[in-house]
Amino acid sequence: MTYCVGMLLSSGMVMLSDSRTNAGVDHISTFRKMHVWEVPGDRVIVLMSAGNLSISQTVVNLLREGIDNADGTTETLLTVSSMFDAARLVGEAVKQVHSMYGDSLVADTGGFNVSLILGGQVRGRGLRLFQIYSAGNFIEASRQTPFFQIGETKYGKPILDRVLEYATPLNGAMKLGLLSMDSTLRSNISVGMPLSLVVYKRDTLELAMNRTIHEDDPYFSSLRESWSQSLSNTFNRLPDPDWEEPLLNLMGSG
Amino acid sequence: MTYCVGMLLSSGMVMLSDSRTNAGVDHISTFRKMHVWEVPGDRVIVLMSAGNLSISQTVVNLLREGIDNADGTTETLLTVSSMFDAARLVGEAVKQVHSMYGDSLVADTGGFNVSLILGGQVRGRGLRLFQIYSAGNFIEASRQTPFFQIGETKYGKPILDRVLEYATPLNGAMKLGLLSMDSTLRSNISVGMPLSLVVYKRDTLELAMNRTIHEDDPYFSSLRESWSQSLSNTFNRLPDPDWEEPLLNLMGSG
Repeated sequence: MTYCVGMLLSSGMVMLSDSRTNAGVDHISTFRKMHVWEVPGDRVIVLMSAGNLSISQTVVNLLREGIDNADGTTETLLTVSSMFDAARLVGEAVKQVHSMYGDSLVADTGGFNVSLILGGQVRGRGLRLFQIYSAGNFIEASRQTPFFQIGETKYGKPILDRVLEYATPLNGAMKLGLLSMDSTLRSNISVGMPLSLVVYKRDTLELAMNRTIHEDDPYFSSLRESWSQSLSNTFNRLPDPDWEEPLLNLMGSG
Repeated sequence: MTYCVGMLLSSGMVMLSDSRTNAGVDHISTFRKMHVWEVPGDRVIVLMSAGNLSISQTVVNLLREGIDNADGTTETLLTVSSMFDAARLVGEAVKQVHSMYGDSLVADTGGFNVSLILGGQVRGRGLRLFQIYSAGNFIEASRQTPFFQIGETKYGKPILDRVLEYATPLNGAMKLGLLSMDSTLRSNISVGMPLSLVVYKRDTLELAMNRTIHEDDPYFSSLRESWSQSLSNTFNRLPDPDWEEPLLNLMGSG
């Protein structure tokens, strides 16, 4: 499995993904699920993928090699003139892969399964974040819905639902993403280290951070440890039920 | 959907379920998913169900009316002599419902989908907790794995993974169950109030609590509020990343 989360914030964008891919218990590997197209001063475009690895790798290759337009020109993520065009191009790549392998994949595995998060900014245009589906269609993040998740999304969703806002600063969003990933790593063995983390500050047109976080990263380790300890302490400080029933019985040693 | 969690503890057992059932967006109802067989001094048996409502209701009816043995006697959850026999009886009821409706349900809905959590104690025997699957087979909770979840399980799993232990006292387990439910309620609209909560203190052979918790319950409301506030405070107190990169850029207003 996979877990990726992308966040659109007033101050910029944070993208975080794990790197575990498995096809059965004895075939577990590490693959990068985050792909970056960066031309400082011109554009930053980041794509994260979940689902069938062969589909997402082929999509990425098509996006690097280019997709032919009707007028004979070839379009890549380095030539699109807006993030909306970037999302359409990724959708087009997904549709092309579907036309190549869709039938055989459905026959072999029961489905054509890929989902992608695409975010970034092209010079002179706005910062935007999209989620792209297996059919090539897509939706866009907004102030009200500032994050998208793909893959094993549920374990890490409550903390984002509770705390993340469009106004959350980049450092806070990074922390939140890492805590959301921590909950997922703890509860699902098919999501694994290392992590890929990208941070982009709005209107800078270059990445503020593009980091691989390994198992022994001191900050991530101490964050996980502090969070776990704080949650336990917080939990212990919460009041016990005050319902009137035979509850007094429960206070004893039991 | 549904969310139910059952916890086996050194001091007893806690069972908690929501009450929302939906079959499509415009068919949302409230059904009790927790069923109790209690004969004070003799036995306490609690069953929670998720999945297809018609299957689980039929299973419960079979268990109330009784299942015929080969020797002509009829067995119910009030006549079984141990929790292991209770689990086998519930499994047998599931298999009977499968033989009645399995083929037509698979043809109509694509699957025969039910899962159950069964816990309790019969006089002179131990307190035990089981999870029962659609095939009628079952597994048992242990000191190492002291809880089972069914239904929409993932949102509420991280907090249990982090904090729940076999040694957790009943009051603490109640709080944990309610917080796990809170995360699920926030993240999934198909899980809904009111909740059913049952608490059993080991070897007492009667329920310590059998409570319906409504939307306006003062304790649950204040617990949710305190937890949410504490999580935000805890999160804000966690240190920001100390990686050496251009991170200083991120500290600014963005």
